[in-house]
Amino acid sequence: MVTVEIIAVGNELLLGDVLDTNTNWLCKKITGLGGQVKRAAIIGDDLQAIAHEIRSALDRKADVVFTTGGLGPTADDMTLEGVARAAASPLELNDEALALVKAKYEELAGKGYVEDAAMTEARRKMAFLPQGARAISNPVGAAPASILKANSSLIISLPGVPAELKGIFEGPLQPILKEIFGESVFIEKLLVIDCGDESLLAPMLKEIAEANLEVYVKSRAKTFGPRVRFRITLSMAGSDRGEVEGAINKALKDLERALDSAHIPIESIE
Amino acid sequence: MVTVEIIAVGNELLLGDVLDTNTNWLCKKITGLGGQVKRAAIIGDDLQAIAHEIRSALDRKADVVFTTGGLGPTADDMTLEGVARAAASPLELNDEALALVKAKYEELAGKGYVEDAAMTEARRKMAFLPQGARAISNPVGAAPASILKANSSLIISLPGVPAELKGIFEGPLQPILKEIFGESVFIEKLLVIDCGDESLLAPMLKEIAEANLEVYVKSRAKTFGPRVRFRITLSMAGSDRGEVEGAINKALKDLERALDSAHIPIESIE
Repeated sequence: MVTVEIIAVGNELLLGDVLDTNTNWLCKKITGLGGQVKRAAIIGDDLQAIAHEIRSALDRKADVVFTTGGLGPTADDMTLEGVARAAASPLELNDEALALVKAKYEELAGKGYVEDAAMTEARRKMAFLPQGARAISNPVGAAPASILKANSSLIISLPGVPAELKGIFEGPLQPILKEIFGESVFIEKLLVIDCGDESLLAPMLKEIAEANLEVYVKSRAKTFGPRVRFRITLSMAGSDRGEVEGAINKALKDLERALDSAHIPIESIE
Repeated sequence: MVTVEIIAVGNELLLGDVLDTNTNWLCKKITGLGGQVKRAAIIGDDLQAIAHEIRSALDRKADVVFTTGGLGPTADDMTLEGVARAAASPLELNDEALALVKAKYEELAGKGYVEDAAMTEARRKMAFLPQGARAISNPVGAAPASILKANSSLIISLPGVPAELKGIFEGPLQPILKEIFGESVFIEKLLVIDCGDESLLAPMLKEIAEANLEVYVKSRAKTFGPRVRFRITLSMAGSDRGEVEGAINKALKDLERALDSAHIPIESIE
């Protein structure tokens, strides 16, 4: 399975000013592609901390490391410098990126959104990518995304503005994602059951998890009360659809049988 | 300044099934208390990964390490086992915790929310805390929180259900937080300015940040367009209110002067 780590960069996240929704969005997408997000982190605008965090992900041999945020024109946007340090690929002016940034400011100036299209130092900053990186166009904002191969990992750096991140991921990144994730699948079954006490479920779920090691079995706790429902999910990712379907269906049958024995009604299966 | 790390535990977060709002909520609260969140992470229900993540936070000598999630009755709730390993304080039945769990199930059984108050294995599991830990009551759910001193750090383990986490933080944890954070303050000024292009602001903000090293200067990028606003925040935490106020006011004056010179109007200051 393709393993992924996500590193979100920005003091505003650690101050609590901004809720990081990018990580959750990426987790959903990557899970849907059959990848496995092993870990996510939030780091401040601190060059050493960024470089260290990326370095750790490379040491863990994550297949893909996504970074989000810190690609903009201001001095506290320093994610790519962190990538450069972690991968020992110094920043350099990237021709592809420069062309993208130029074209973007010409478009913005044409619309009257900015005063002129001059390539100031702050704008040029967004075209400095780690040596060997590939620039990916940003259909929504000015800063291009960057893709860098480092050891056995691929570091994909996306902007922090959610509309820009999504625009790149759903647009120009798609062919690259297809290459990375191939034909992987992810299948999940969600059961809603009529049982108000998770502690009753615990031994049953433990048994089912132990008898179906490849399948991830999870119950979601709600607060207590009469007629409270629990959600149980069975999920699995893999590169062979038939195998994943077989394993999920077997775990589902085990669970249905166990719930039936315990007289716990199933309200729905999705 | 009191440094904090947050570790959220749960496969459902990495699958993207659940958006982690706890970390943002804690960041806001800790910032408000004058603490500094240095780093946050999301980890799956994997004992080794949990223990390793906590160990790393202890190695970085974070003053406080919050963990969220994984305190429940099911086998995949293993955060405290991770804490136990990281701190080399094996799990043991905690009398205080056992009394809290018992009392909770008696209350729930009295209300008819659960069938009986018997201390099953799954319920007793929630009363196993690392050796030397202190149990903190959960006003909303069944699993007590745990506080453990480990080297120079304090590991505070909270449940993942947001209502339970908030109930404990705002309730029984308050006196402990007062002890930890003392009289620290955090002050933030938010300026909304009428300028559609962040790249124009970059050199100015860099200068102001360099002339006011203790103050954190941040602009928030929006997408481009006519009449787009930018938000600039100046913020600082510290143990001396007068000192913090002085530094923030000085940075604010510098910023006002710079914006005025560049003919960029300020729309509001909060």
